[in-house]
Order: sequence, then C-alpha cells, then structure tokens
Amino acid sequence: MKITDVKIFVCSPGRNFVTVKIYTDQGLTGIGDATLNGREKAVVAYLEDHLVPLLIGRDAARIEDTWQYLYRGAYWRRGPVTMAAIAGIDMALWDIKAKAAGMPLYELLGGASRDRLMCYGHAQGGDIAEAVESVGALIDEGYRAVRVQSGIPGLPPVYGADGTSTNGAAENALPREELWSTSKYLRHAPKLFEAVREAHGWDVELLHDVHHRLTPIEAARLGKDLEPYRLFWLEDAVAAEHQEGFRLIRNHTTTPIAVGEVFNTIWDARLLIEEQLIDYIRMTSVHAGGITPMRRIADFAGLHNVRTGAHGAMDMSPICLASNIHLGFWVPNFGIQEYSGYSEETLEVFPGTWSMADGHLYPGHGPGHGVEFDEDLAERYPFERSYLPVNRLEDGTLWHW
Amino acid sequence: MKITDVKIFVCSPGRNFVTVKIYTDQGLTGIGDATLNGREKAVVAYLEDHLVPLLIGRDAARIEDTWQYLYRGAYWRRGPVTMAAIAGIDMALWDIKAKAAGMPLYELLGGASRDRLMCYGHAQGGDIAEAVESVGALIDEGYRAVRVQSGIPGLPPVYGADGTSTNGAAENALPREELWSTSKYLRHAPKLFEAVREAHGWDVELLHDVHHRLTPIEAARLGKDLEPYRLFWLEDAVAAEHQEGFRLIRNHTTTPIAVGEVFNTIWDARLLIEEQLIDYIRMTSVHAGGITPMRRIADFAGLHNVRTGAHGAMDMSPICLASNIHLGFWVPNFGIQEYSGYSEETLEVFPGTWSMADGHLYPGHGPGHGVEFDEDLAERYPFERSYLPVNRLEDGTLWHW
Amino acid sequence: MKITDVKIFVCSPGRNFVTVKIYTDQGLTGIGDATLNGREKAVVAYLEDHLVPLLIGRDAARIEDTWQYLYRGAYWRRGPVTMAAIAGIDMALWDIKAKAAGMPLYELLGGASRDRLMCYGHAQGGDIAEAVESVGALIDEGYRAVRVQSGIPGLPPVYGADGTSTNGAAENALPREELWSTSKYLRHAPKLFEAVREAHGWDVELLHDVHHRLTPIEAARLGKDLEPYRLFWLEDAVAAEHQEGFRLIRNHTTTPIAVGEVFNTIWDARLLIEEQLIDYIRMTSVHAGGITPMRRIADFAGLHNVRTGAHGAMDMSPICLASNIHLGFWVPNFGIQEYSGYSEETLEVFPGTWSMADGHLYPGHGPGHGVEFDEDLAERYPFERSYLPVNRLEDGTLWHW
Amino acid sequence: MKITDVKIFVCSPGRNFVTVKIYTDQGLTGIGDATLNGREKAVVAYLEDHLVPLLIGRDAARIEDTWQYLYRGAYWRRGPVTMAAIAGIDMALWDIKAKAAGMPLYELLGGASRDRLMCYGHAQGGDIAEAVESVGALIDEGYRAVRVQSGIPGLPPVYGADGTSTNGAAENALPREELWSTSKYLRHAPKLFEAVREAHGWDVELLHDVHHRLTPIEAARLGKDLEPYRLFWLEDAVAAEHQEGFRLIRNHTTTPIAVGEVFNTIWDARLLIEEQLIDYIRMTSVHAGGITPMRRIADFAGLHNVRTGAHGAMDMSPICLASNIHLGFWVPNFGIQEYSGYSEETLEVFPGTWSMADGHLYPGHGPGHGVEFDEDLAERYPFERSYLPVNRLEDGTLWHW
Repeated sequence: MKITDVKIFVCSPGRNFVTVKIYTDQGLTGIGDATLNGREKAVVAYLEDHLVPLLIGRDAARIEDTWQYLYRGAYWRRGPVTMAAIAGIDMALWDIKAKAAGMPLYELLGGASRDRLMCYGHAQGGDIAEAVESVGALIDEGYRAVRVQSGIPGLPPVYGADGTSTNGAAENALPREELWSTSKYLRHAPKLFEAVREAHGWDVELLHDVHHRLTPIEAARLGKDLEPYRLFWLEDAVAAEHQEGFRLIRNHTTTPIAVGEVFNTIWDARLLIEEQLIDYIRMTSVHAGGITPMRRIADFAGLHNVRTGAHGAMDMSPICLASNIHLGFWVPNFGIQEYSGYSEETLEVFPGTWSMADGHLYPGHGPGHGVEFDEDLAERYPFERSYLPVNRLEDGTLWHW
Repeated sequence: MKITDVKIFVCSPGRNFVTVKIYTDQGLTGIGDATLNGREKAVVAYLEDHLVPLLIGRDAARIEDTWQYLYRGAYWRRGPVTMAAIAGIDMALWDIKAKAAGMPLYELLGGASRDRLMCYGHAQGGDIAEAVESVGALIDEGYRAVRVQSGIPGLPPVYGADGTSTNGAAENALPREELWSTSKYLRHAPKLFEAVREAHGWDVELLHDVHHRLTPIEAARLGKDLEPYRLFWLEDAVAAEHQEGFRLIRNHTTTPIAVGEVFNTIWDARLLIEEQLIDYIRMTSVHAGGITPMRRIADFAGLHNVRTGAHGAMDMSPICLASNIHLGFWVPNFGIQEYSGYSEETLEVFPGTWSMADGHLYPGHGPGHGVEFDEDLAERYPFERSYLPVNRLEDGTLWHW
Repeated sequence: MKITDVKIFVCSPGRNFVTVKIYTDQGLTGIGDATLNGREKAVVAYLEDHLVPLLIGRDAARIEDTWQYLYRGAYWRRGPVTMAAIAGIDMALWDIKAKAAGMPLYELLGGASRDRLMCYGHAQGGDIAEAVESVGALIDEGYRAVRVQSGIPGLPPVYGADGTSTNGAAENALPREELWSTSKYLRHAPKLFEAVREAHGWDVELLHDVHHRLTPIEAARLGKDLEPYRLFWLEDAVAAEHQEGFRLIRNHTTTPIAVGEVFNTIWDARLLIEEQLIDYIRMTSVHAGGITPMRRIADFAGLHNVRTGAHGAMDMSPICLASNIHLGFWVPNFGIQEYSGYSEETLEVFPGTWSMADGHLYPGHGPGHGVEFDEDLAERYPFERSYLPVNRLEDGTLWHW
Repeated sequence: MKITDVKIFVCSPGRNFVTVKIYTDQGLTGIGDATLNGREKAVVAYLEDHLVPLLIGRDAARIEDTWQYLYRGAYWRRGPVTMAAIAGIDMALWDIKAKAAGMPLYELLGGASRDRLMCYGHAQGGDIAEAVESVGALIDEGYRAVRVQSGIPGLPPVYGADGTSTNGAAENALPREELWSTSKYLRHAPKLFEAVREAHGWDVELLHDVHHRLTPIEAARLGKDLEPYRLFWLEDAVAAEHQEGFRLIRNHTTTPIAVGEVFNTIWDARLLIEEQLIDYIRMTSVHAGGITPMRRIADFAGLHNVRTGAHGAMDMSPICLASNIHLGFWVPNFGIQEYSGYSEETLEVFPGTWSMADGHLYPGHGPGHGVEFDEDLAERYPFERSYLPVNRLEDGTLWHW
C-alpha cells in the first residue's frame, strides 16, 4: 500500500488546527493532528516543504520505519515543531493501518483494558467563590474529577487562575502579558482547596495546575500545604527542563505529581519516570510524535508505577483527543484524561465517533481512530495568527507562563 | 469474538514441545508455544487445570486485559512455569488478532523495519581443531555470525563445549552430570578464538556462550582476554539473579555482553538494561510471557541502547521462533536472532512460512505468525520425559550448568 | 540414608493443600508443604513428572546438595511453581534429618532463642463498627497483635476489607471479580484505625494489609496518615516487582513496612533488605523454597535490621506453619508470625505438636517439625479447583488483588 | 532603540542559509544566522509567521528579555526549529548592540583572552592512502589540527568517510540512503590512524568523527583502540539523547570525547558536562539559540573542565562562524573551532572581517560580529530543497546518519 499524496490543512474553527491527510493507492486515507499552538505555520512548513516529498511512494504500512526515517533522518532531532510534524504523519498512518485491519485503533494496540476513561474538566473563577461554584457545575454535569483554578487576590486575571481569562486559548494579535506573584499565589492556593472541599466534599477528585511557575522548593512547600485537601495531582509544578529538580519536590510531599504537556520525546521525561519522581505523565499524541512513541512512553511509565494523564486541552484537535482515547482504552497504566471540550464549529469540522458522558470518555468502535475531517467546511475557518500569553513578575521579569 | 475452546498439546518430534491452541466462535484459531524444557508437564497442568477454564467465553481481542488477568490474577507472579503458560495463550491470541486483521503479525507491531534478520548458528567441537572446522562449515552454509564452543582440555565433554554433547538437547531418563573447571576453561577460551580468527579471518561475527558458569570477576577477566578477538557478544557470563554483579564485568571490558534466555519477566533484566550493563537482551517470546511483554521489553531495551538477540535454540517450538522473527522484523533495536535449526520431524509437525537463507531469517507475509500445528502427526510423537544436564565442579560441588 | 519413594498428595479439607512425603530406606519419612493456592496442580505436575524421578536413590541427608540440584538444575529458575515444589521436598528432608537426629527442627537450626512467638490474628468487618468489635474479640482470645481490615464505604465487599468476604480463601468455579477504588480506600483507612485505637487503646499491636493495591506515592500518603495510630506494620503496600518503588514510601513515613508473602527467592527482596526499605520480611517456607533458603533470608535480613514476619494464612498447610514456627523459635531477628487458624478438618488431616495460646505460638519439642499427615483421612477431601479473586478498578481495569 | 522591521532571507549560494536582519529606529541593523540544514523553511515560517510580529516595537537593547520572551513564551520550548529561529534574532541583536557600542562583539563578552583560535580542517579520502594524502595537504596549508575520515573497505561511500561523498552537504531531491556496517568500520578505523601517524608524525592534532553511529560499548571499544594514536578528540561517538550512555565510554578510555553539534539547549548537555563525561562541547551559536545561551553553556562547561569546540561546518552561515569566533576569542575555556571553509559564492554573499591563516581563525576588530549580507547578490541564489543523507544498516534498518 503506497502513499500517493499527503495534504496539510490549517483551519481555525474557534482555534487553529493543523491536519495531515495521507492518501494511498488502495483508496484508504488517514488523518493526523499536527497542531502546535501559536507556532502552527512552522509545522506546516516543516511538513509541506520538507516531509511531504519524503512520503510519496513509501509503504504506508511501514509505520515504524517511517517514524525512524523522519526522526533520525532529521539529524537535528526532537523539539515541538519536529515532533508535531512527525506526529501528524504517524497518527494518519495508524489510522490507515487500523482501517486496513477493519479494527478500531485500540485493537491494534492490544485491545480494550477498560470500559471507559475517567476524564477531568476545568473549573475556574475570578475568585474562590466563583471557582467553588464552577466546580459544582461540573459535578452536576457528571464529572468525577475537576481541575480547579482561581483568580489570585492582588493580581489581575492570569491564565489558569481566572474565569475571565480565555481558558488557555491563544490570543489574537500579540500575546497578552499577564502578571505573576509566587508569594501571593502560595498564600492563596490552599484556601481555594479548603473552600472547594468544604463546599463539595471528598467524593470528587481535585486537580490543580501550577503552569510551571514555581521553583522546586516552592513546589515542595505547596505540595505539603495542599496535602490536607487530597489532590489527585499537582500539575506542572516547575519548569521541567531540569528533571532532577523534581527530586526536591518528591522529598517533601506525598501530593501526587503530574507533568508533561510540553514534552516532545521520552527523553524529556526519562529521569522523571525512571526515578519515579512523578505519578502521572501528561504527554499527548500530537506533541510527543504520534502513536508510535506514545505506546513506548506509556509502557516505560507503567514499569515505574507512573500512570498516564494525557493533556487534552483545546490546543490539540479532536484527532489527537481520539488518539489519546484509543491509547488510554488499551494502556494498562491509564490514569485519567484531560477533557476541556470543543467548540461546536470544531466538532463540525472534525466529526468523530468518540463520546463523552457522565465524566467519562469512550472511543468509537469502528475502524481507525474514528475522526473525520470536513475539508470543505474547514475552508470557512481560515488560519488566524494568535498566541498564548506570556507572564511577568511584578518587577517586570519575564517569567514562566 | 469469544474464545470457545482451548486445547493443550504435548508432542516430542525430536524434542518435547507444549502447544496451546485457541478456538473462537468466528472460526478463527491461533496457536502459541508454551514449552518449558525439562518441566513441560508443569506448564501443561498450569494451563489445563488452572488457566483454560478462565479463558472460555472471554473476548479473544482483549489480549492486554487477558495478559494482566493471568499475570496479576495469579497472585504469585513470575517464574518460568507461569510465564510460559501465559506466553502460549498470548501468542495464540496475537495469532488470532493478526488473522482477523488479515495481516502478518509484524504489521500489527508497526510494520517492517528491515528486510531480513541476521541469525547466528552453533559451531562446536571436541577440541579447537574440530571447532575451527565447524565454524568453517557454517560460514560455507552462508552464516555471517557463529557461536563457537569447544571441548576443554582436561575435562570430559560438557554442553556448549563439545561436539559430542547433544547441543543442549534434553536427555532421557535422568540428567547427565557434567564436570566443570573454571580455571581450565579460562585458560582455554582465548586460544579457541585465536585459532578461529587465524583460520577464518575477521569477516565473520563470533559469539561465545559461558552458560552462567563464572563469577563476575572471572567474567571480567575473560572479557578482557577475549578483546583481541572482537566478539560480537559474550553470553550468559554469570548467573544473573544478582543483576548488580554485571557492574563488575562492565567496569573491566569492552567485550559486548548478552544475557537473558532464562529470564521470565522484565524485572529479571530491569537494572541490567537501565544501567546499560548489557548490550543484547536475549529474552524470548515463550519464556518471557508472550508477544505482549516482549514488545515492552524490546522498547525498554531500545531506550537504553540495548539491542535484541533472542534465544532461539531447539528448546522452543517453531511457533516461538516465528514470533521472535515477527518481533525482530519490526523492532527498531534488533540485534541478532539465534538459530539452531529443527529436526525434520519438528518442521513437519509445525510447518511454517518463515524461512532461512544465507545466514538470515525471514518472516512469512500471510496473516498471523504463519506457523501451523499438525495435530494428527503430533500424536505420533508422544511426550518423553527428559532433562537438561547438571554441572558439578571437580570437587563435587553442584554448579551452574 | 537413601530416598526410596516420594509421594505427592492433594487434598482439600476446607482448602487445597499439596503435600510431599519422602520415604527412606531406613524407614524414616518426612513431609513437606508444596501448596500454591489456585495453581496447585502445576506444582503437583512439576513434582510428579519432573522432580520425583530425580530424588529416588539420592542421599536424604544431602539437603543442601539436593536443593542446589533442583534449583540450579532447573535451568529456568525461580517462580512460585518451581519454588513451592522445591520447598515441599526441602521441608520433608529437614523433617527426616531432625527425626534422624531425634531432635525438634529448631535444634538443628541452632536451638531456641526465645520461649514463644508472638502471632497476630485477623480482625475484620463489613464496616468500622464490626471491625472494632472483631478486634475486641481477638483481644479477648489473648491476641497481643491484630491485623485489622474493614469494608470500604461505597465499595462492595473486597477481600481483606470485609467480614463477609471469604478471608482470601480461594473460590470455586471462576475467580470472583472484586471492585477497587484507591481514593475511597485512602479516605477510609485512617478512620478505621482511629476507631480501633479509641475503642481498644494502645496496648494491642495493630497491623494492616494493603494487598499490593497502591502506588508508591499513595502508600507514602497512607503511611503518613496512619502514623498517629502507631501501626506495628503496613503490609504489602505496593506491588513489589519494582523494589526501588519502596524508596518513595520510605522517604515519607516512619510507619514500619512489611512485605514478602508472594516472594519466591531472596532476589525478590534483596534490594528491599539491603537498602533497609522494609522492616519485616514476610516470606514463608513453602513459597520461598523451603527451610534451606528461609534460613539464609532470615540471616540476610538480620544483617540489615529487618525482622521476620512470616506469612501464615490458610493458603499454606500446617506443615508450613510448623516449619515457620521452628524457624522463628531459632532466628535471632524474629519479629512476629501471622496466624489465621485452620478449619477443624484441616487440623485433623494435619495433626501437629505445635500449639497456640494467649496470642503466642509454640513449636512441638519432639523430633522433626512435628506435623503428621493422615493419608486416609485426606482421601475424603479431594481436590476442588478454586481461585483467588481478581480485582478491577471501577472503570474495568484489571488491578492488583 | 526600537526594532522597526525584521526580514528573513533564504538563499542558496552553494548551500541553503536562513538569515535574519533586524532594523532599528536609529538606523542600526544587525544580522543573524537561523539556518537549519534540510528543514530551512520551517525556521523561516517560525520566524515570519510567529516571531517577527512579536519583535516590532521592542527595545533592541533588551536582548536577555527578548530571548526569555521567545524561549519561555513559546510554551513548547527547545528543539532545533525553535532554537535556530531564536538564534537568528539573538545574533542580530548582539550585532546591533556591539555596533551601538562601537566595539567588536568579543569586547562586550569580556574582551580578548587570546590572540588566535586554533581550528581544524577536514581531511578525507576514498581509502586510507587518499586520506593520508589529504591530511598532508591540510598540514601544508598550515593546519595544526585535522579531522580524518576515510572510505571503509566493503562499504560504498558514506558521509564523513569518503572523499567522493559531498562532505555532508545536503542533497537535492530526496535524501541519499547510505549504508553502514559498524563491524566493518570498527576494524578499519584504527588502521586509518596508524597510517596517518606513520606518514605525518605526532605534531599534528588528529580528530575523528563517528557521526553518532555506535552504541556506547562500541564507542568504548573504539576509544580504547585509538588510544595509541593520541586523538585530540573522538566526536559524536553515540546518539546523545541518552546522556548517561557516555558513562560507559568514559569508564573504558582516555581518548578525549567531544559531542554537541545537534544540541539545541544546555539541557541536552547538562549531565554530560556536570559528570564530566565529555571534554569538548561542540554546540554552535545557530543551533543552540544564539550568543546569549552560548555564553552560559561555555561558562558552565568551564566550571567542569570541559572546553569549547564549536561545530563549524558549511551547514551554518558565515554569520554563525563569526559569532563562534567572537565567543572563542573571549571564553577562558576555549578548545578548538571547526573550520571547513565556504564556497566563493557564499563568501561573496556574506562578506566578513574574520580571517583564517596558518591553521588559526581571527575575528574582525570592527563593530559588531563583522559579517555583512549582500541582499541583492543573495537573490541570485534562490532556495533549493535539499536533504542530508540517511543511513541504513546492511539489513535495511534505518540507522543514525
């Protein structure tokens, strides 16, 4: 089965998405997600100008060989642009293979290991009261697990901590500059969770995202402070390039630790996993280079008591979400799946067979990953340049967002 | 697709083999190897008396769940009997899944990563001259890689070191007691490889099997002594329960190290791989619990620059060899495959689509792993109890064989 | 003294037991336990088809040589089936040797180090109130140490946590599938011990069994939460294949840690002991390969401040319990012995000289280990296939039972 | 001083180069190199579509803030595309700042630490004789240090090992697939250096590039074999994602080790440097994100006895070479600079004040980094898509090139 054509699409049905579509000489096609939020066009150029010519005429079934060809053949390996581009191709090839087998993707991975995937939703508010209310709304919708963020007294709205912020959605024009104060945050965060537990009790799993804004000792302090509220996880506590930094957190708190949405290869997490410095690896199919490496990463994590908790925000298309669902449906060491929903426009452009009900996600059971791409409709939503915010400390220092 | 029946067969077409056959309500069947040489009946009882009742009615497609059910559900996990039994089932289920997909097994794993698999054959002789001659014969047959063993001056024939020994084949009646002297062996081994290199030059890859008979410092000494002869690997240098023991070997020699044919789970090799104490992991599908864990082990090894070199002696049936070939055809970090051939009778009972030519192995390209089992013919070769030899030092101490 | 015959018996006086009986040319006989709960017939086949022929004619006095012969001679070593089979033989040979010496087994090990062995009993209940009551009943019976488990609010009965569950007894027909929720359990466990301490004060030693159901960080959290209640130990907190996982628990809590009932060889516990990651090693004679290795394991543990706390549930026959008692009577670093009693039928089939009084166990002081086997009576209780339960998470994931 | 415009140029005067030009409201301009060989257009899109809009209106003097803004603000950090894009901007801003100061760039870094920079040239040949001759030619040109590669008997020409190969230059159309055999190479390499030493004696420094094609144990073996020939360094011995892999090399040989041309951030080398596993860090301004991080990397290396040895092949433009020269002129722990020359066309498009004489490089002493960009001339050399080769083992496995 030869690859005859590869097309790259960029559309913006609410948010920018990059989609790879691979055509074969047997009529089968497959699609993959190659979205890198805020840097979409770099991936498009990586694909169109450099990778697509390599794919024409290749055997669509040789997924591993193609992955190695693109990864090793790049010479300069790794990084978000490279790996998102490879991911788009890899996902599309697994889609084709599963269709050729007449099976849902999870069957090729080893079959179903569970009936459904618990997912967590996003609750947030300008202040604690709003956040508490938002948690309640999600519980009413059936969520069993909720990520809670709220505005911090003394700071203007900041992403992940405010209801008026755009839920991480990229901003048009130029990046918004937000303001950060670690000391204000650290005093505030335990109060938020105290209030949530008081209002909603102990049956709901609570998660919290620090968005890489602390140092290890600050994260250790926060982890300890939050122990009474029994978090499901504390996410992205510190910038993670320095994996050894997590040792310090680990020495001081039993609050479970999650990280990984910005990781691109297993090397970004190797020591974290090997030393069991984290409990949940949050890598996601599109940013990690596709199904092929995600399978390896999940297995490597499982060996070390680390469970999956894939990133699932709106910065990845429904193709990636579906891929994550198939992976999660199979992988023995599944933990949880993030789910923040999609706009109606997005779901029309990317109709799929996956579903969400009562706080759980379900894969489709037809062949492939089960998401389609409506090319005609996509044309109505042309790419719009947009950026994620940046963060500055109160003295003006450029900080981690 | 429900499992409707599972049958266990033991036959001895030259050597004892345990075969698992799984039947489904859609007519598809699959077969797996569950042979544990010298302890075959324990695996048969493990399967017939304990596992088969668990399988009837289960979904044949849920391979991962079944594997976990049998592994975790055993409560007392690991060990050669347990893992060979699970392996037989796992291989048969992957055979069924690949047939259901209409694909060769390697396609489900990720597709072909190479055109052929280099294998190594066994050369041996009562003395160095015979061993040198035996190497030549294999080179003439097209082998690019040869494992060389020879009789040790001052010792009666011992397995792996003598042409008159039965190539590791299990013995009838009671185990033969062989005799071992490490000091005689250590003086002898370098001379063997000096002679082979002198006679056959440097184009052939040479391997050597120590059969777990040394201590780490002795192995380190041997590794250093053999450096001038550029071995492809030094195999099973020490008994491997104490994985840290390999650190000592590793500190002293650049001779590549291989081990693993007696390992049953990834835990037997975890530290060896994680600390890169070995270069080739020799685990094999039947002893390691099937395709499901072998995929994980190979990926874990690849992350640490360890390549595969699966055990492939006649103590596993052609079903296991075929499974290894499919795994090797896919896995990026393939190293080499052992191949010691089979008797004509064995090949008639287990006809397969794999092939061997010019020192390389090739998988079949039809659906499944491509090996069949002739039940009627198998009945002509009933089980015969037999044992591998044991080894004693010259003073009578029971030693590692 | 030659071995003239070896017979293997399976009987089910309440629970399945595998018994090895060795006959010698001097008329002395010895018996050993080879029970592997839920996989009994695999051990029987391992013994009858493979080991028994090796034993006929051997010198019954060469216990060490026989142990090495069976362990090293298996080639594929370790694992529950292999080690239970070897254990049965080893126990029987020590029984014979002690009888030949006219001494109780503990005398051959080095003689008595104490007067009695503290043991712990099992208290449990469907809810906290029942569990509290059950603790009281055991205290009234004279127990100084009690393992406490109770039903978890929101979960159906699960083994080790409910009085209506069958105390871990294997189930007929197919394995019962239980349901597990770590978060429900973690919220519940501290309340249980708070209630027990409140009701029964601080003179009783309290133990708790997690049954391998947590990850390391969860176990660390639980260990911290239970610190106020001063447990004697926290048992089987995590699945133990990954021994390094215990480092994380150890960094966070001073609750003493116990593990080992599923271990088969010293290699399963080596790092745990060498790094002093545990306080009690719970290996037991039958699963660990007999008296010969248990003596070594206990000595190795003693070197590292680890005490014994042998498994003593009804899944091992009274022969194994007696062996454990003899070991415990001698070993300097004895900690505690589990004791869950036996059915009347079992005690009739395996009458013994050991005794239990006031929360302590005592060995018999006659020759051997002091347990006999009533073959005729045993015939009335034929083997019945049964299984331990398996465990699933609420989403269907196969979990650790 | 505000940035008023940023332009991105791609030209191919012999090889593709990406150039960033920044304009300010004070009339000063600066240029930087953003070339990523084989993936040039992805960097162009990263710059034009995503970074350029962020720069307009920013203060050109706030280099550090801009670097952090682009690095941290990307959210998905690191990787060759991202870092090459940032590098182009960073180099241009340093060029502007040095021009604003009226000083050569090295003055802003701390001033000259030496008079000249030893560089090494590339000698190679189809066989050993040609390579020996090529070394002689470079010695005659005044080189004090020469990297030596030659064709390998039994293999067709392969990059870095053959005069007929195009010196790593990217190929038009599709990537050439080269062929690799580690065993053939390992037998050959020592002979090459024996011949060179015999012909040219010991006054010349010899270097060798393995191009990431070995495993650690193979690299250790090679390092040992080459010890008699006293290499200045052994370069890129293994694929470097797994930094711990270098421990194995380090344990076995005193041959100095160099690596880094594919690295993008300090995180790719941190452990290598912190554990002193290497002697020379070969990171280069364009791939490492510019002058700002290179200064840090060099300082961190110096702390650990690691010296610089920056990549300097034709896959980076003369702007990057000049930046490297300024860095090397200042940095206390300078080691050596690679220099492979440029085509006449390239030097006309990028005229500069740096110079090379008698095996040494010299920076220009005028303001800035001293390289200009002839936009009009560049237009005559439009971008041509081209690729670096890929490498396959003889069995077809995709290997490291």
